[in-house]
Amino acid sequence: MILYDAKQPGPNPAVVRLFVHERQGLRFDVETIDLAGLENRKPTYRNTVNARGEVPALRLDNGRIITEITAICGYFDEIAQGGRRLFGNTPEERAEIHMWTRRAYLEVVLPFVTWWRGTDAAEEAYRGHRILMPEAKRSHRLLADQGLNQFDEDLEGKTFIAGDNLSMADIMLYGFIGTNVATGEIPWFNVPQAPQRRRVVRPYGGARCQPEDDDRFASTRRKLGWPSMENDPIDVTGDRGSCQRDGARRR
Amino acid sequence: MILYDAKQPGPNPAVVRLFVHERQGLRFDVETIDLAGLENRKPTYRNTVNARGEVPALRLDNGRIITEITAICGYFDEIAQGGRRLFGNTPEERAEIHMWTRRAYLEVVLPFVTWWRGTDAAEEAYRGHRILMPEAKRSHRLLADQGLNQFDEDLEGKTFIAGDNLSMADIMLYGFIGTNVATGEIPWFNVPQAPQRRRVVRPYGGARCQPEDDDRFASTRRKLGWPSMENDPIDVTGDRGSCQRDGARRR
Repeated sequence: MILYDAKQPGPNPAVVRLFVHERQGLRFDVETIDLAGLENRKPTYRNTVNARGEVPALRLDNGRIITEITAICGYFDEIAQGGRRLFGNTPEERAEIHMWTRRAYLEVVLPFVTWWRGTDAAEEAYRGHRILMPEAKRSHRLLADQGLNQFDEDLEGKTFIAGDNLSMADIMLYGFIGTNVATGEIPWFNVPQAPQRRRVVRPYGGARCQPEDDDRFASTRRKLGWPSMENDPIDVTGDRGSCQRDGARRR
Repeated sequence: MILYDAKQPGPNPAVVRLFVHERQGLRFDVETIDLAGLENRKPTYRNTVNARGEVPALRLDNGRIITEITAICGYFDEIAQGGRRLFGNTPEERAEIHMWTRRAYLEVVLPFVTWWRGTDAAEEAYRGHRILMPEAKRSHRLLADQGLNQFDEDLEGKTFIAGDNLSMADIMLYGFIGTNVATGEIPWFNVPQAPQRRRVVRPYGGARCQPEDDDRFASTRRKLGWPSMENDPIDVTGDRGSCQRDGARRR
């Protein structure tokens, strides 16, 4: 089994990495694709891995290729040895986590990313390999803001998005957005200064300081070191923001 | 278990209905919501069923509400008694169907629907209950066309989108688009006259006539009668188009 991962991890590869580390019990080979060099848009990758030119992709032992991050993570969840399921243990839990994962993607992540795809930076990065929508930046920001407002309400009294434990839904929302926030390319997300949505921005260290055990990805951050990642896609404290706790600067 | 279904079935309720009929082995109560009267946007529905004001929704026997069509259908797939699974029987099949369902939604359905949400008809229908994107209609048509082109290539030599049988992926693509095509609100989809994409438009009776047994939803159409539906969301022949077979007008 081979995971085609990215040398410069954008949010999609970052979500799969985060899933792998939270899920535990997975072993596979990794092949690193150079996104900045558009290796994923070249004929070799498109003809042998993914005709759509997207990363990540997973080559199963039967030779079939699986793309789409939720499909890759769902497969991993089924085959992992040990660890804890992140898509749920019963039909009811799976339905709830599925629902929240899709809401997170469609209501927040997608408008958020499509906003970014309207920027000059996206035009430079994609170089004609994607239809962008600069004309709809304002609408996409409105949609993302509306989605974040809704999630902030949904999180009232909850630590995790779906159920009592961290699930794929948290990984979708925070893994994806975390990457974009970390790059500093979404100035209006404005994490540390956003008092309007305290609940939904918690994992980014924004708005209010959390005790360490209220940090949903603390264990991942500690254990992980994000091998082969050039930056931690979740940690947006430090140079890009700060959150004081007990008078000490938090990393 | 209660399914909140629509009196005037838009594409989301239609996808769940199509799934129920193809999946078989499901029993539940139905409560019909008046979308045209915006019953789903009123406080009663939003406070007791779905804060997001969307239909369909499923009330489980434990009282929890599940929304998002793929989550509802996925739950149905797990609990149905008899029939045939439409999300796959093994982790590999499930990953493949999951991948194709998500591709169908993100690459074709969503740009297609978002195009429609830029029309005057959508503005009248939603009456302020959704952020629309009239400024990005052209981009959304381009994206939907690009997605349909890709699916037409993907379908080379295949009858169904994922694997050897009808799956959730077919239901997502054809159930969703079929509803919009049936209403005549997507003039550029141009089914019966579209020779450029013969494979992907087959289920709509377009481009080339199909023998009855090559009609992916023939069994549904025959058995179903689409109870409580005001129009068949899949059948776009008849008044809105026609496909001559053996000299006879086909319904």
